[in-house]
Order: sequence, then structure tokens, then C-alpha cells
Amino acid sequence: MAEWKDEAEKTLDPADEAGWAELRALGHRMLDGIFDHVQGVRQGPVWREMPGESRLRLESEGVPHAGEGAAAAYESFVRDVLPYGIGNAHPRFWGWVMGSGTPVGMLAEMLAAGMNPNVGGFNDSAMMVEEQVIRWMAELMGMPEGTSGLLTSGGSMANLIGLAVGRHARASFDVRGEGLKSGPPLRVYGSTETHSWLKKALELMGMGRVSLCSVGVDQGYRMKIGEVKEAIAADRAAGIVPLCIVGTAGTVNTGATDDLAAIADLCAAEGLWFHIDGAFGALAYWSERLRPALTGMERADSLAFDLHKWGYLPYDVGCVLVRDAEAYRAAFATGASYLNAMERGPAAGGIRFAERTPELSRGFRALKVWMSFKAQGVDSITELVEQNVEQARYLAARVARELELELAAEVPLNLVCFRYRGASDAENQEILQRVQERGISVPSSTVLEGRFAIRVANTNHRSRREDFDALADAVIAIGREVVGERR
Amino acid sequence: MAEWKDEAEKTLDPADEAGWAELRALGHRMLDGIFDHVQGVRQGPVWREMPGESRLRLESEGVPHAGEGAAAAYESFVRDVLPYGIGNAHPRFWGWVMGSGTPVGMLAEMLAAGMNPNVGGFNDSAMMVEEQVIRWMAELMGMPEGTSGLLTSGGSMANLIGLAVGRHARASFDVRGEGLKSGPPLRVYGSTETHSWLKKALELMGMGRVSLCSVGVDQGYRMKIGEVKEAIAADRAAGIVPLCIVGTAGTVNTGATDDLAAIADLCAAEGLWFHIDGAFGALAYWSERLRPALTGMERADSLAFDLHKWGYLPYDVGCVLVRDAEAYRAAFATGASYLNAMERGPAAGGIRFAERTPELSRGFRALKVWMSFKAQGVDSITELVEQNVEQARYLAARVARELELELAAEVPLNLVCFRYRGASDAENQEILQRVQERGISVPSSTVLEGRFAIRVANTNHRSRREDFDALADAVIAIGREVVGERR
Repeated sequence: MAEWKDEAEKTLDPADEAGWAELRALGHRMLDGIFDHVQGVRQGPVWREMPGESRLRLESEGVPHAGEGAAAAYESFVRDVLPYGIGNAHPRFWGWVMGSGTPVGMLAEMLAAGMNPNVGGFNDSAMMVEEQVIRWMAELMGMPEGTSGLLTSGGSMANLIGLAVGRHARASFDVRGEGLKSGPPLRVYGSTETHSWLKKALELMGMGRVSLCSVGVDQGYRMKIGEVKEAIAADRAAGIVPLCIVGTAGTVNTGATDDLAAIADLCAAEGLWFHIDGAFGALAYWSERLRPALTGMERADSLAFDLHKWGYLPYDVGCVLVRDAEAYRAAFATGASYLNAMERGPAAGGIRFAERTPELSRGFRALKVWMSFKAQGVDSITELVEQNVEQARYLAARVARELELELAAEVPLNLVCFRYRGASDAENQEILQRVQERGISVPSSTVLEGRFAIRVANTNHRSRREDFDALADAVIAIGREVVGERR
Repeated sequence: MAEWKDEAEKTLDPADEAGWAELRALGHRMLDGIFDHVQGVRQGPVWREMPGESRLRLESEGVPHAGEGAAAAYESFVRDVLPYGIGNAHPRFWGWVMGSGTPVGMLAEMLAAGMNPNVGGFNDSAMMVEEQVIRWMAELMGMPEGTSGLLTSGGSMANLIGLAVGRHARASFDVRGEGLKSGPPLRVYGSTETHSWLKKALELMGMGRVSLCSVGVDQGYRMKIGEVKEAIAADRAAGIVPLCIVGTAGTVNTGATDDLAAIADLCAAEGLWFHIDGAFGALAYWSERLRPALTGMERADSLAFDLHKWGYLPYDVGCVLVRDAEAYRAAFATGASYLNAMERGPAAGGIRFAERTPELSRGFRALKVWMSFKAQGVDSITELVEQNVEQARYLAARVARELELELAAEVPLNLVCFRYRGASDAENQEILQRVQERGISVPSSTVLEGRFAIRVANTNHRSRREDFDALADAVIAIGREVVGERR
């Protein structure tokens, strides 16, 4: 490096017009290829095991020091990667709670990556798009003007942020400066059905699982309000500071929603932070017909939800909303002077998104939300949310009608838990595995009151009622097969 | 909802063949549009202020309940968003430390969003792609086989995770279960030049800023090793448990790299966790010529870096590597049974990425890394890293030659801090603002030893030496202009 290189400087862009034309042509081929894939997804199996040779290549190929070119890399993708996904884009995928994505969302991701801003909050359009999306979200969730928020990588980060704001706002000592050792022990309350993000967040936040009070649930898997009240009183008596109640809109096991209005009342009476994990359930609030079951959600101090689940957007994008913008700012703001020095130009003004998250650099995940909302309209998304609930009820009704099937829980929303009747847990698990392996459908499973259940979580905009019948048919047929093998 | 809808079920996919053809055609138009944008980026200004009408639309348009169609949404993007980014894709953008992105990375993002897997770690190809990328990264960073890791939204999350693993591994009490209140106070050491992520992480982790010991730096902005040693001894004497030393490979102010080998020795001697923030600097390790300055990096217990900076990939993607895979697992694993129940099918086997992060659902950000590496080769990326350093030295030499300019710090890597000589801080700031506002170039600024400096951070694969001359020319011309206005 003593001498400057004399040769032309390099770039990762194509070297000349011909190179640009070639890459652009490849891009058009890719676009057609991925459109073919999405458009034809119904015709293929939901899931298929990766063949050994693809697996071997992904396990054994060394660092690619020399490039093979974009066309060859794309061929590898088409051969070894694209066909062997988890299957969540398929109309008969209802495993865990996943999103199916849309072609509009996919195109927006291409545009976002081509424009490629760092949405840390500069004086630029991408920052304004994210802020607009947050405003729209706040309005849709019934939260007041001035609500602050952020798009995140997903629900767990959104939940973590909401909880961190609540901790700072309600701890009554300087958590950021002095740390947890300087104050009394803190307590957070959530039902036993609360998603595992809460334990993980409390661990990371240094509070430990000891700071979690797991409250029992009623027969509908909803938090017992009386039990929370008692726990708060006992904690106060013991010198533990009650900090926050976490309500859930749509539990992961059965789709239950806590009595959010009752929790809001309790938080108001006791001076606690009210955080809601609405990972998928929160979007039901957009529907006038479904909203009554979520009354009180709009009273959250902080609300976390995903858009890559029931918002039908490609991974990843979640959102946190915080009612008190100043409390939010106070919990994260650092006042990094190098970002604030300028009165004009790209560093002037702007919203310091980095003051709302542990992150600094941020991708333009707002664009896919913005374009999807504008292109398809929020009403069409809401109609599909309603349709997913109707389909879940349709499946539940079918299960209830079939002598060989039985429901394992109530169906308050879009989740259906059921079993092949008269089969053991192991046999029901075997039935589920065959349904998955044969590429018919991918539900997942859960355990309710100690018993295994096949679990259908429907956040899929491609599903039709016939797809749920196909699942029921398959479980019956394979159930007979598995039980028949018993002898 | 008492009755099932009789009409055809809806979807967010196009309704029929004609609809698919129309959307696909729009996709091709978008692809051409964004290719035109990227290919022509050099011809436009680096940054331009958003016009009032675009700003107004983004500030005032309400929730789009009815959709306007994808074509109209795209027109809005082209009109109001695309031209008014922060400018980081432009060859004369060197503000903060940002990435410029590549067209191959952009196409990979489209494919990732079209396939749309949830890379939580199932029995699928996307999980294997991410694991392969992590293996490649470990090898490139000189870390041993068996090193664990994760792709993250960026360096701050990667750093947070590394620190959290270190805390769990070295705290000598059960942080996850019992929380910080159950053990002695902990201390983390980093230089005064350590990036602000560290304070933010300690705050979130409940340790408070009080747990940070900020160590002084020498004239080259490198951590004073003797001072760390003394601080550790004093802390031990005071009953504080030394936990971790954070070394930096490439500080944000000047590009300095701590004496990583000396820190590694010290950590080994004292039993401390050795974490390195290599947000951009770590990638210099890939170059044989630059590597000597980073000797010791391969000895890190955990190493965090970005690929959307010096890896030239679109936002967002960072990486954390952890040498001791078991320590990593122990710090985050939850053993969520609903993910592990199956012996076959999509939930069998797999790597539980969710056990390496506070997150659960995860996007397919691995694909752009994998395709970029395969298509362009790691060696070409490394050559561009070297070129960026050469260009920084070229600018530094030009600054040193010009009577009207002066260097504000040494140039150990790819950052150049300089001033218009004989101008005040306010005047230098005015010069920078005019350079930015006129769309000539976007450097950012910093303060070194109490004085304002224009700061060029070069992680841009599109820059040429002529671009740095254009900046120097502009600073001289505008410097004369600003100083001339003094009278």
C-alpha cells in the first residue's frame, strides 16, 4: 500500500454498460422466477425434506474467496434453497404463528434495498415514511395523537422495548444510571400463558426470572384478575415494587385475550405500567366485529405487535407503540452530539429513531408497510383478518361434527387446537408428522392440560375453507392409518 | 360472522391470471426503475432537501383505508421517497459510517422476501444458509471451528448479545434466574472512544452506566492498557467483580484500533470476557495487508461487526460470533418445548436461532450475505476494503499538501478528520453544511480535543480518488467563501 494503485479503481457495481445490462437482465429473470414461485405455491407441497446433496453443499462448501457470478449464485439458490423453506408462504401452512408474505411486500423490499437508507432518523424521506406508518398504527390501534413508536425486527424486540420504557418510567429510581442494584426488587405480572419473550426479556434486562410473577388463568386461558390483585398486595407488603402488568391479546396456545379493560383499570388504580403483547392478536382490533373482545387495548401504556404475522408482510417487521412519548424518550435517549450538531443539511432535524431502541443503524422496513397499506388498503387487510377468524370457526365446526375428531380448546380467535379422538398423544404426534411430511399441511402442536394437540394458527391470506377441509380429511385418513397400525 | 360468507374467499395475491400478469409487469417496471436509480446515482446530488409538498404528504396523509393499487403506491414512492434519501448510496457519501449497498444485495433481498422464511431455526434451507454464513464469518475472522454466531439487525444488537453472553458466563451467579440484585456489582471496561452502544446496552441490561469504567486513550485514541489493569485491581479491592473488557476495532471518531493482543492477554490473565466491537473495523481483518493492525482480534470471546457497512450489503445485517458455543447457548436457551417436540418434519432438528437472541421470528437476512459472497467473492470485497483505506490515505495526503487544510487526527484506517485551516469551529461547520446542502458530498463531523472537524468515513465501494479531490476542492472553495464573509 506504499504506492497508489495505478489501475482503475474497483467497485461492486457492474464495471460497464454491458455489465449493468447483464445484471439487470438477470434481475428480470429472478423477478420472473420468484413470481412463478409465489404464484404457483399452492401447486407444490407445503414442506419437503431437503435432499442430501443440497444439505451437503450448504454444510460443506468453504468460504467463496473467488466469485462465481450472480447468475451462478442464483442457480444455487433455485436449486438448494428456494424449494426447501419452512413452507409458510403456502395456503395450507398454519404452523406456530407465521406470516405468508405478499408479492407487493416483496417488491417493496427490493425497492427499500435499492434505495438503501439508514433509517436512524436523518433529515430524509425514509425517516418520514416510518413516522407516518407509526402514526397510522397508533390511530388504527385506538391510541391518541402524539403516541410514539418504532418499527422493530419483530414482536419480541417490540415487547422488550415496551417493557424497558415501563421499567424506566415506573421504577422510581435511576435504572439507566445506577442500575438495578440501587433500588428495591421489581415485579412484573403476566399470565402463565404469556409468551416466552417475557422471561427472555427479564433475563436480558438483569431482572431475572425471579422478577416475574406468573398469574394463573381461567378456563378460557385468560389471566385471573383477582390473583394479580392479591399478588400485587403481597409484593408491596414484602417490599417488592410492582412495576408492570403484561396483558396478552391473542395467546400463542389458544388465541385467548386477557380482560384488557380490567387490567387497564387495575394498572390505573395501582400506578403500574400496562404493557400489551399483541403479537398477532392486536390486529383483530382493526376489525369492528372483532374489536369488542379486545376492549381496553387502546388504554395500553405500551403495545407490541407484529406485521409479519397478521399484517401479511414479509419478514421481518414488528411495531411498538408508547402512549407517553416523553417517557419513551427518557428511557432510551442518549443525546449523541455527533448526530445533533447541525442546523441544516442531512443531519438537521429529523427523528432520532436510535433514541427509541438499543439499535443505531436501521433498515428501511417501513417501506413495505407503507406501500402495502397504500396499495392494498388497510380495509382489505382487516377483511382478511376477519376471514382468517371465520375459517378457524369453520374448521372448529368441522372438527365438532366429525366423530373421529375433537376440539382441545375453545376457539376465541384464529387458533384451533384439536385431536384425533381415541388416539394417544404419541399417535396424534405421529399423525401430525405424517401430515407434514407428506406436504399436505403444516399445522404445529401444543400441549393443553397435559395432552398433546394439533394446533392450527391461521394468519394466512392464501388459505381457503377447502384447505381446512383438506387438513381435516388428512387427519382422519392418517388417524385411521396410525391407529390401524396399533395391532 | 354468524354466517359463513358465501362469496369467494379473498387473498392479498392478485385475484386471477390477469392480475398476476399486471403485478408482474409492474414489478419489472420497478426493477428497471430502481436499477436506473442505482446505476445513475453518481449523476445526481448526494443529498437534497425534501420539497415542501412531499414533506406535507408524508406528514398529513391519513390511514389509507381503501387501497389505491400497487402502481399508484409505487408512483408515490418515486415522487416523494426515492429522491430524498440520506444519500448513502452515492459515491461521495462518507457520513457517519454507512453502507452503500449493491445491486446483487438488492436482488437477494427481493428473493428473500419472496421466499419469506421465518429463520427461527427449523428443518429448512434458510436455517442452513445462515449457519453456513456464520461458519464462513468465523473462518474469515480467524476464529476456530465450532464458533457459534448469529446474523443480527446490526452492530448494536450484535454487541448487546456478545456482552450478555459474557455477563452470563463470567458473573459467577445466576443472572438469568436471580437477576443482578443477587450478586456483587459488576464492571465492564472500555475506552472513552467506545461507541455509545455500550452505555445503551448496560442501561438496558439493568447494570446501569455505573457499571462502566471508561478508560483513557493514548494519542492514537487507543485504550491505555496500564489504566485498565489499575482499574481492575482497584475494583477487585472494592468488592466489584470485573466482568469484561470491550476492545474496539475501528473507533467511530478516528478509526483507531485498540491493542487487541494486549487486551486478550489481560483478559486471559484476569479471567475476564474479551468482547470486541468491530462494527466496521473487523472487516479489515480479511485483508492480509491490514490484518497486522488487528492482531488479537481472533482471540475474542465474542466479536460483533456489521455487514451493512464495510461488507457493502444493504441494510440491515450485522453479525455476532461467540467462541464458546456452549456459553452462548447457556446465556439464551429457553428450551421452548413446542419447538422441540418433533422427531421428524419441519420442526425436527434444526438450529434454534431463537436460543441465540432475545428475538424469536427472524427474517432471511442471511440470503443477501450468502449470495453476495458467492456471486462476488470475498476477495473482491476485501480488495474494496483495501481500496477504501488507500483512498483515505490519498485524501489525507491531499489535505497535508494543501496549505488551507489541516488534518485533525492520524489516519490509521479509513477515516479522515480534517479542517479548513484558520477558520473557527462555527465556520468549519458552516463549510460542511454548504458542502452537504449543495449536494457535493456528505461527510459528517466530530469533535476532537475540543475542536470541530470534518470527518470522512469511507466504507463506500463506489468512491473514486477523484471524488475525494472533489471534496477537498469544495472545502477549499467554500472555505474561502465563508471566511470571506467574515468581514
